[in-house]
Amino acid sequence: MFFSPSITRLVEVFRRLPGIGPKTAQRLTFFVLSMGKEEVQEMARALVEAKQRVRLCSRCRNLTEEELCSVCRDERRDKTLLCVIQEPRDMMVIEKTGQYRGRYFILHGALSPVEGIGPNELMIPQLLRLIEDERIKEVVIATNPNVEGDATAYYIADAARPLGVRVTRIGFGLPVGGDLEYADELTMTRALESRRVI
Amino acid sequence: MFFSPSITRLVEVFRRLPGIGPKTAQRLTFFVLSMGKEEVQEMARALVEAKQRVRLCSRCRNLTEEELCSVCRDERRDKTLLCVIQEPRDMMVIEKTGQYRGRYFILHGALSPVEGIGPNELMIPQLLRLIEDERIKEVVIATNPNVEGDATAYYIADAARPLGVRVTRIGFGLPVGGDLEYADELTMTRALESRRVI
Repeated sequence: MFFSPSITRLVEVFRRLPGIGPKTAQRLTFFVLSMGKEEVQEMARALVEAKQRVRLCSRCRNLTEEELCSVCRDERRDKTLLCVIQEPRDMMVIEKTGQYRGRYFILHGALSPVEGIGPNELMIPQLLRLIEDERIKEVVIATNPNVEGDATAYYIADAARPLGVRVTRIGFGLPVGGDLEYADELTMTRALESRRVI
Repeated sequence: MFFSPSITRLVEVFRRLPGIGPKTAQRLTFFVLSMGKEEVQEMARALVEAKQRVRLCSRCRNLTEEELCSVCRDERRDKTLLCVIQEPRDMMVIEKTGQYRGRYFILHGALSPVEGIGPNELMIPQLLRLIEDERIKEVVIATNPNVEGDATAYYIADAARPLGVRVTRIGFGLPVGGDLEYADELTMTRALESRRVI
């Protein structure tokens, strides 16, 4: 190699990030080397500090720097409505709609026997306790529409129903603005299953 | 916002990198938060150390951790052949061919009056001195095939020719494996200009 060890190392570090291939890692490395020293130090500090400060909300497992996250602290939220999602980023997608005013529970994954991820790893017992303790009226399951997400949704629905709570799952079908012509078979199947009288 | 300050800050830091939009910055941030503490610290260290250690080769302005870069130190290189490139990454593209055995000079940019980048910013006087001092026989200009790269190539060619050196520029035309049908007009024009007797 004609690049020096610390350059090569920075390229390798960037490559560990998701979606960053060798070309991009190189481009990012050269960019960092062209940045000001202070700016690079600030970047390094932001990494370490985020990792140090951020922990999981003790109620919903959202990322937070406090005991409870800002959503759980928000008194205007409907406390009888609980949305179950796989990842913290999924919350953003739902919040953006402005249509959901309940709170959340974040699984940080989905059931996957192959990877050794069972109900305990997803803190499902904690979720069920929360449903009981907080007298939740409706659990909206918003796991991903794939094998793991489906399995997780069914597992939670089966476990929560005996607690006398209404369990729903977000709808699947054609994306708005999508073209029927380009819909894949699975989406189309779901769309047919989800048909409603108009 | 429903994310904490240090998360927001890390997203902003990632967004400063080239080609990283808001979605990717968010994805990278969540990934970093899922990494081990040690790994994040290692990443931060790699950033700071690369920036601290890497400087420009005193001869060719390549990135290096020593006085001279590994290419300039390589005694097997043809010292009478000099390739002028815009960026350190361009060296990689040329080295990969295995066809070039000379040395380099890196401009770190191209002439751009609008941005205030003139010959001095690109160290072109230093380049001309090097051509004289090292008795270079051929200067291969490999700046980009765009307005700035062309202007830079012509400027260097005009300045170097009086020194009695052969000045060439890499060829332009259809990319190998490319399809004539998809060639843009400028590439096609260059391809016609570069035609050779076969």
